[in-house]
Amino acid sequence: MAADPRFLKYVDEHQDDYINRLAQAVAIPSVSGNISYVKDVEAMADFLISQLESLGVKTQRRPIGTHELEGKEVDLPPVVIGEIGNDPKKKTLLIYGHYDVQPALLEDGWLYPPFELTKDPEGTGKLYGRGSTDDKGPVLGWLNVLEAHKNLGLELPVNMKMCFEGMEENGSENLDKFIESEKDKFFTGIDCMCISDNYWLDTKTPCLTYGLRGINYYEIRISGPGRDLHSGVFGGTVHEPMTDLIAIMSKLVTPTGEILVPGIKELIAPVTADEQAKFEAIHFEMKDIHDAVGADVTISNDTVKTLMGRMRNPSLSLHGIEGAFSAVGSKTVIPASIKGKFSIRLVPNLTVKEVTELVVKYVEDEFKKLGSKNKCEVVLTHGGEPWLADPNHYSYRAAHKATEAVYGQAPDYTREGGSIPVTLDFANILNLNVLLLPVGRGDDGAHSTNEKIDTDNYIRGTKLLGSYMYELAAISKE
Amino acid sequence: MAADPRFLKYVDEHQDDYINRLAQAVAIPSVSGNISYVKDVEAMADFLISQLESLGVKTQRRPIGTHELEGKEVDLPPVVIGEIGNDPKKKTLLIYGHYDVQPALLEDGWLYPPFELTKDPEGTGKLYGRGSTDDKGPVLGWLNVLEAHKNLGLELPVNMKMCFEGMEENGSENLDKFIESEKDKFFTGIDCMCISDNYWLDTKTPCLTYGLRGINYYEIRISGPGRDLHSGVFGGTVHEPMTDLIAIMSKLVTPTGEILVPGIKELIAPVTADEQAKFEAIHFEMKDIHDAVGADVTISNDTVKTLMGRMRNPSLSLHGIEGAFSAVGSKTVIPASIKGKFSIRLVPNLTVKEVTELVVKYVEDEFKKLGSKNKCEVVLTHGGEPWLADPNHYSYRAAHKATEAVYGQAPDYTREGGSIPVTLDFANILNLNVLLLPVGRGDDGAHSTNEKIDTDNYIRGTKLLGSYMYELAAISKE
Repeated sequence: MAADPRFLKYVDEHQDDYINRLAQAVAIPSVSGNISYVKDVEAMADFLISQLESLGVKTQRRPIGTHELEGKEVDLPPVVIGEIGNDPKKKTLLIYGHYDVQPALLEDGWLYPPFELTKDPEGTGKLYGRGSTDDKGPVLGWLNVLEAHKNLGLELPVNMKMCFEGMEENGSENLDKFIESEKDKFFTGIDCMCISDNYWLDTKTPCLTYGLRGINYYEIRISGPGRDLHSGVFGGTVHEPMTDLIAIMSKLVTPTGEILVPGIKELIAPVTADEQAKFEAIHFEMKDIHDAVGADVTISNDTVKTLMGRMRNPSLSLHGIEGAFSAVGSKTVIPASIKGKFSIRLVPNLTVKEVTELVVKYVEDEFKKLGSKNKCEVVLTHGGEPWLADPNHYSYRAAHKATEAVYGQAPDYTREGGSIPVTLDFANILNLNVLLLPVGRGDDGAHSTNEKIDTDNYIRGTKLLGSYMYELAAISKE
Repeated sequence: MAADPRFLKYVDEHQDDYINRLAQAVAIPSVSGNISYVKDVEAMADFLISQLESLGVKTQRRPIGTHELEGKEVDLPPVVIGEIGNDPKKKTLLIYGHYDVQPALLEDGWLYPPFELTKDPEGTGKLYGRGSTDDKGPVLGWLNVLEAHKNLGLELPVNMKMCFEGMEENGSENLDKFIESEKDKFFTGIDCMCISDNYWLDTKTPCLTYGLRGINYYEIRISGPGRDLHSGVFGGTVHEPMTDLIAIMSKLVTPTGEILVPGIKELIAPVTADEQAKFEAIHFEMKDIHDAVGADVTISNDTVKTLMGRMRNPSLSLHGIEGAFSAVGSKTVIPASIKGKFSIRLVPNLTVKEVTELVVKYVEDEFKKLGSKNKCEVVLTHGGEPWLADPNHYSYRAAHKATEAVYGQAPDYTREGGSIPVTLDFANILNLNVLLLPVGRGDDGAHSTNEKIDTDNYIRGTKLLGSYMYELAAISKE
């Protein structure tokens, strides 16, 4: 069911109001990772609550404990939950967003003050400001939808539950516990979930995102000598931890990206015909990645192979070494105790546990082969599972139709190479299909200087979110 | 010819005077690497000159240009040259020492104020203070010899020329140019040279040092992406510089220390029977190196193999990586541009040039095999040739006899694994046999906190230097 035409007309006619709402939100510097902004994060929660209440949403401001920020124990930003509509004949949609933002300072290289929405300074419709696209714009997109319906006296096609947090940019601390604790209370009766907190792959093509890679981060810790040694005095007499570490690290991955840890490749889920078709349909040229990387250093020149390398295959990156000489210049040190760091991006059916077992065994075996008297230990310092939704779920089908209606083209089906842990928390704890429905473009610069959202994306994004609700209401669950 | 007994008796009777002279010298904080101490370094040169002049040495205070120290252009510490005796029937000995010291702060962990000679605080004869052993003690040893002869009215058995610098701890800047410029002026008519600026291998056995390893320091520079990348977004799609670098670095040396660069092994001079005998005679136990290293991580359990590994074989150490992630924690970065650092210790007949040619060719060949689109460059950032003296030269034979006379035992013949560039400069520019005749023990802590010299080493060292002059005077050049 297409969106009510009055809704779409209202959106077109109230663009300035919507942009002003975004300007009000951007003006509140709700930086969650900095003690100086604690009150601003609270103020942003208050702003959101007052906006939601004025639009008829029953809200709750829920404390979720304290945390240490720059050495001080402070309250975590509250979770704001809300609901509107309770019609058992309608589907119930859960939405998530976050009201906190990344840090930003004018002197970092911003063209305009980051906490002031700078409207279209170049005549291309860009709206600059911290949080404009991550994630205040998309969150306000939902509010814009609600406002249109309220002012037009239109009934919402679905019931809505909402969960907004203020700690996304700082680790989403305690959100998983909150979801767990409200699993059988607030988070009941939900049919499906939509999150607008990621981006198009490029700057032109709307997409639906149905997968995220997980990550296992490891340290190989090698030690031996009691202290750092002078290579003039001891070079040639002792087993050097660096030699051992480099030998092990060289056995993890080939220069063409093949992971050498036995057993990992075998865990990768086979590519289905449907998946293959979805990858082949993605609008993507090699130039896109060469531009993003700043050079042609891609392993493959094939777009589908490259996209699969990014989205549906595991990858292993060597990040660096802690404890070795890393400064400018020449130091003739034999480092005594070092930590080699690498991570593996996980995809179905790789699990944190299975991959770790394979990695630990392999590294231990390879270290034994070296015949070194040093000690070696492999430690998983962080593990996050991959996530994959069913892209043929009715929620995705509804979003597909909404995209076609608003953009006049079918969306690409993408996955993200990185992780968004809250997605997994909602999907797994609440056992829900989660749709990632991005509003912004791939060049929005979410965590960079000069973050922006294009007016067209913000306005059509509002239509997209509203249209999705209409399509979702009408679509068959079968 | 044994030393004049009156000289030896004088030394025994004037221990306190000698220790007081050392206390005066240690009290001048002549740190050459710190702008705050520029005047103290000058004061130390003045002290040395006045001492030498009072002992009958004709001295000159020679400026050798300026250098940049902490951003300021300042005069280099002067070279102090001197001569005493000009008898054509006597041999002429050149000695070298340095009057500057390493930095030292009480809060670094010194038990006693570093610029105050703390005499025998533990009842074991140790004299604590910065410069006590490196190199003020040995330099004053020569002055003690001169004082004894002057006060006893004894003729010196040899003519002496002296060269003392104040920049040894800060790179000996311009000393090579000074030697070159005075090659045919001050530095003429010299038979041989003695430097007292290194240490016994252990704490019990006097030694003569006849070799130093050289060093080639390299950077393997790999770059590709235009900027650092996020491994979630780009892992699996691009050639990662770290993967390439680790692959190359792993092909340089085995965990048992074997250098894999083809052609280097073949350049090593074969071990002669005389050399083998000298190595086998060295007083050394595996416990010595295990104690020094702080663990049993030695490649070999054989003392001769271990000593040769340190002194007469090349070694390759991997020092670290500049530009990769090196901090505590987890960062999912793909570094765009990195420098892997390693060095090779050189021994005869390896030369800086030949080894560099082999290394560059090998690294380039191995990089090509990787099939990477990144760029790779190998750069020699510093090169220093190895040095080897003839340990059967008459100067060594004289020192051998002097050691037997003073210590009642033959010296070990050692080489140092590290480099002392001034040795090469003197040996090569002046075409001289250089004897390294250490006064201090292996545990003196030359560049560490709590630097010390043992009273016995200082006093017997004075006798040793004097006795060496007598033996040198008498020995046949054949």
